[in-house]
Amino acid sequence: MTRTWAPVPADSGFGLANLPYGVFAPPGEPPRCGVRIGDHVLDLAAALGDDGFAAPSLNAFLARGRTAWTQTRNRIVDLLTDTSHEPRLTPHLYPVGDVVLQMPFGVADYVDFYASEHHAGNIGRMFRPDAAPLLPNWKHLPVGYHGRAGTVVVSGTPVVRPCGQRKAPSAAAPTFGPSAKLDVEVEVGFVVGASSELGRPVPVSRFAEHVFGVVLVNDWSARDIQAWEYVPLGPFLGKSFATTVSPWVVPLDALAAARVPRPPQDPAPLEYLAEEAWALDLDLALEVNGQVLSRPPYTRMYWSPAQMLAHMTVNGASLRTGDLYASGTVSGPEREQRGSLIELTWNGTEPLTLEDGSTRTFLADGDTVTISGTAPTADGGRISLGEVTGRVEPAVDG
Amino acid sequence: MTRTWAPVPADSGFGLANLPYGVFAPPGEPPRCGVRIGDHVLDLAAALGDDGFAAPSLNAFLARGRTAWTQTRNRIVDLLTDTSHEPRLTPHLYPVGDVVLQMPFGVADYVDFYASEHHAGNIGRMFRPDAAPLLPNWKHLPVGYHGRAGTVVVSGTPVVRPCGQRKAPSAAAPTFGPSAKLDVEVEVGFVVGASSELGRPVPVSRFAEHVFGVVLVNDWSARDIQAWEYVPLGPFLGKSFATTVSPWVVPLDALAAARVPRPPQDPAPLEYLAEEAWALDLDLALEVNGQVLSRPPYTRMYWSPAQMLAHMTVNGASLRTGDLYASGTVSGPEREQRGSLIELTWNGTEPLTLEDGSTRTFLADGDTVTISGTAPTADGGRISLGEVTGRVEPAVDG
Repeated sequence: MTRTWAPVPADSGFGLANLPYGVFAPPGEPPRCGVRIGDHVLDLAAALGDDGFAAPSLNAFLARGRTAWTQTRNRIVDLLTDTSHEPRLTPHLYPVGDVVLQMPFGVADYVDFYASEHHAGNIGRMFRPDAAPLLPNWKHLPVGYHGRAGTVVVSGTPVVRPCGQRKAPSAAAPTFGPSAKLDVEVEVGFVVGASSELGRPVPVSRFAEHVFGVVLVNDWSARDIQAWEYVPLGPFLGKSFATTVSPWVVPLDALAAARVPRPPQDPAPLEYLAEEAWALDLDLALEVNGQVLSRPPYTRMYWSPAQMLAHMTVNGASLRTGDLYASGTVSGPEREQRGSLIELTWNGTEPLTLEDGSTRTFLADGDTVTISGTAPTADGGRISLGEVTGRVEPAVDG
Repeated sequence: MTRTWAPVPADSGFGLANLPYGVFAPPGEPPRCGVRIGDHVLDLAAALGDDGFAAPSLNAFLARGRTAWTQTRNRIVDLLTDTSHEPRLTPHLYPVGDVVLQMPFGVADYVDFYASEHHAGNIGRMFRPDAAPLLPNWKHLPVGYHGRAGTVVVSGTPVVRPCGQRKAPSAAAPTFGPSAKLDVEVEVGFVVGASSELGRPVPVSRFAEHVFGVVLVNDWSARDIQAWEYVPLGPFLGKSFATTVSPWVVPLDALAAARVPRPPQDPAPLEYLAEEAWALDLDLALEVNGQVLSRPPYTRMYWSPAQMLAHMTVNGASLRTGDLYASGTVSGPEREQRGSLIELTWNGTEPLTLEDGSTRTFLADGDTVTISGTAPTADGGRISLGEVTGRVEPAVDG
């Protein structure tokens, strides 16, 4: 890999191989688009002389499509490696610690899948102990549902514990109050750039034409609210109070070396889901109050990103710039690879003891949850997917 | 009611008592906001000298809030009743037949409820004949889910029959192909104008501060796709291919005389759902190929519009300008009041015979579906909610 003149600390996950995009606001200045290099953010409107990046959202850039995305990335690499640009660009590099990172794109529709066999199996074993862990449709299609786009927020946004209805199985009627089973879900999200036409499915082979890149996602979940409400139309208020995403959108171009074979699928999926077979080698980590609780491996996901996209559009549903679809909880086969507290504590029956001696079944007020991730590069290093973090605040009027 | 100088045919549902808002494009001109009077559309940017209406979307106006909505309505009534304005405004009145009506607002999030006891009961009786028709949560909360905002389209947009996976109960595996059970759902949609803050529920008492008005909704549904996919996360591709709305947003101010007592609720709902007790007296009609199949009465809906809003936000989920939430299928207690074909034909077991002698279980290619509606006025007349229509086109590659 060529070297950059920009300052990049040793072991930075934000070298030239990464170059993720985000939206940042320098102190007292309006937000605009930038690309991260080391511990700095490069102002793209200034660096490229392109007003499309002067907006407080990546959407205009995302809408341009694959050819423009690659050209822009190549141009940024040129600017950051050719030392002749250093004098002009240095004033447009901001220390990342001095800026406020904002929501990187406007979310059009948000879809959440359920693509981990280990997660779906764990949930099945917990709630249907006498039946097969997976429901009959699970291995035939990537099960998914629409979430609330308007409550997708950027990393760092506090999460107020939601109130709602919940009913114990033995209770005669529901009660109202703060969720007692506030949970997290470690997920990876895929950001759609190029739109598609209503009525025209997007096949698996066109994944990279439409998907720009990835973010980390914490799909906060109130398990008690969800358990009471979700039959027959699925999760609603148990999920819609907040979904947090990382501030940096890592382009697919930075993840070429992370493509690995997908786990085998049996039964073979129907033809519209059958054309590709790669997964992403992303190592994720779930921390509560700074302590790593699990390391979910994205490589083990049953359904691939391209399969989820093809399924989501096979009925003719169109894509819009800013659509976000997430993988569902990433869990591996081992206990320490589970991406949610409901799995780690087996629905609260096996509490975790944290290093400070306190125990958790689900999240306590004041807990800070952080999800981070890395991906391999061609030269044996790793790039960072950044992190998505949020602190639990007490319920309002709870 | 004062009289207007503008031409309004006798028995028009679009007199001064209505004045719904939409987006229209005169031939060869860009789209902008208008208000309907009789069989004409008044260009609001020109009439009011307000650039907020020059956009191809009502969203900027919707964001202004209740006080501005009422002031604008009063001003429009003044303009249309004081004959001194006639010479200036007449050039800004366009025959509705000469313009193209577009999507009236940009949809932020789309939520679909399930608020008719008769509809939910019919579905329960069909699919769980040996159990109670309603699931245990149904009378405690308005069951709902998020739909796909990006495929909400305006009346007149053709609907391509979706393809997808479906599996007969007796089949070993799913197959892929065009839906054989394409259905409609007669619904009423509520358009959110004023946004709310994340983490702060919107109580039932603040309904009119946030909700601007109503549209008619056809929530097209592929019953076979839905039946296979929906466990456990709810409807997804069976609904996301298209949702059609009427082009005219009827303001709540035009529906004051339509407020009637809501049917009693037993058990009494929890306190956050308990503060108001009105329903809307809207008469709806479902036509296929010009033949009225049913007349669903909105008065009989179990959950009220304000209860749905309060429930949707009780977990702290915020509202955005352009949020749309729909009632779910409107069905009354009588057979001829059912708002979907799955109910009218009892899941295809009781085919309908149309006037041309053909029969239907579900929709055939080429069928045109039209939903219309009216509401009472204070002087004993009725205003029109317009109509939402769409023609079924054959599946692509089907």
